[in-house]
Amino acid sequence: MTHGEPLPEQHASSVDVVEYRGGEVVRRSDRLVGEEPLEIRAAGPRQEPVAVAVTMRTPGHEDELAVGFLVTEGLIDPADVATVEHGDPATLARPDDTVVVRLSRPFDASRVAERHFVATASCGICGKATLDEVALRTEPLAAGPTVDPDVLLALPGQLRSAQAVFERTGGLHAAGLFDRDGELLALREDVGRHNALDKLIGAEALAGRLPLSDRIILLSGRIGFELVQKAAVAGAPVLCAVSAPSDLAVESGSRLGMTLVGFLRGYRFNVYSGSERIALA
Amino acid sequence: MTHGEPLPEQHASSVDVVEYRGGEVVRRSDRLVGEEPLEIRAAGPRQEPVAVAVTMRTPGHEDELAVGFLVTEGLIDPADVATVEHGDPATLARPDDTVVVRLSRPFDASRVAERHFVATASCGICGKATLDEVALRTEPLAAGPTVDPDVLLALPGQLRSAQAVFERTGGLHAAGLFDRDGELLALREDVGRHNALDKLIGAEALAGRLPLSDRIILLSGRIGFELVQKAAVAGAPVLCAVSAPSDLAVESGSRLGMTLVGFLRGYRFNVYSGSERIALA
Repeated sequence: MTHGEPLPEQHASSVDVVEYRGGEVVRRSDRLVGEEPLEIRAAGPRQEPVAVAVTMRTPGHEDELAVGFLVTEGLIDPADVATVEHGDPATLARPDDTVVVRLSRPFDASRVAERHFVATASCGICGKATLDEVALRTEPLAAGPTVDPDVLLALPGQLRSAQAVFERTGGLHAAGLFDRDGELLALREDVGRHNALDKLIGAEALAGRLPLSDRIILLSGRIGFELVQKAAVAGAPVLCAVSAPSDLAVESGSRLGMTLVGFLRGYRFNVYSGSERIALA
Repeated sequence: MTHGEPLPEQHASSVDVVEYRGGEVVRRSDRLVGEEPLEIRAAGPRQEPVAVAVTMRTPGHEDELAVGFLVTEGLIDPADVATVEHGDPATLARPDDTVVVRLSRPFDASRVAERHFVATASCGICGKATLDEVALRTEPLAAGPTVDPDVLLALPGQLRSAQAVFERTGGLHAAGLFDRDGELLALREDVGRHNALDKLIGAEALAGRLPLSDRIILLSGRIGFELVQKAAVAGAPVLCAVSAPSDLAVESGSRLGMTLVGFLRGYRFNVYSGSERIALA
């Protein structure tokens, strides 16, 4: 299992808390998950970095988060990433608050406005148009693995054990990457569920391992449209979650040829699309 | 109890699902929570509407979501809202995908870029600067209610019963508004936790009931920085959640003089800041 360095201890904080429990009041210390803003910038070889987004995230794995975000939002090609630089060169203060993804070719800044502001609207305020656009930008998903139900049922337990060190903060979403035999390959955590998946995909992108054609992704929470989109851009054919998908997530998964599994817990799961990749009797 | 119309039935979808349960495969239908994009625009009296944001949300309560978002992001003053218009006048297609909040005074479009793009970064990539900005923009919170612990302990059950109609989709965040005696006054639900709170605050804004100085807000999930910010802008002095707060949420709540309660479930809760508003023995 090579699921990467766990989130450093300093990325959870200790605070004093007043606990009320069945009429008793106890003053004690509690551990909280860290939350900080990260500004993600992108630039070509000798280009001024362009601010693309600010996200509230759990500190740790900043390079992966930045690259994963830019890739899964369709703003850069993972093959073009040259280096990842930390900190604002103007101030050099709190360097982990800013990440610059430097590309080997010019960064097209017009795509930022296009994707994130003006044309997030014009490209398709109707979800179906957005969906068409995603389908257009995305390579068709590979036939991918055929997964045994017992392999699926074992995934949440693995995710939880690997997460155990941070479970006591009670505040983290997790995204896990597994092979077709259910071995955990990587795990990333964040206060934001989108960030956890961006970190996971960014790690694979930086290692040159996209598309994730033979992989299974498990999310600790629910599946919305944007998570399906991110998994599809990364080429992951099987997306599972411990909780429910939304209707648009299912519509997108189905349209993109993705296997979508929800309510994966205990001895059960639901397959919402692409059931041909699950070896059901 | 006047917690408003429940989310219409058509805002959950039925899909065919393959359920696997302990070796058995059952094909049945399942209900999913609805997720669709909404474009939020703002405009002065005879001004061309400016696209402010696109959010993935659960259909229903679009006016409240749009107004709540604009108010809690500090982009408009609730007193300036004249009307809320639906649909893009150019196409009139899928009118519920676009909401225009029309103000009685000109809308300062420069604030959009300022808040949402360029200056989301420059105003404070360091969370503390952002925090200072929020504190500056926000009226000091009222002394507010003193809440009995038993009142707090009863809130989650009330939220769940009121939510029951939608529990079977398993995919909704809820935000509930209570008075100091723990009576549920309003409830809003959404796939996005920020949207649920925006809808709740938007409803109160449209009814002319801001600031929420004497109210308690309960969130079904966790508390991040942005939720503290939204509650503070609405003037709500007591913010509770069933799950954990982040460290920045606690730091902000503390700085803004807000009472922050987490892990409110069963017979217990934790008070992270402002414990003077809880009547602890």
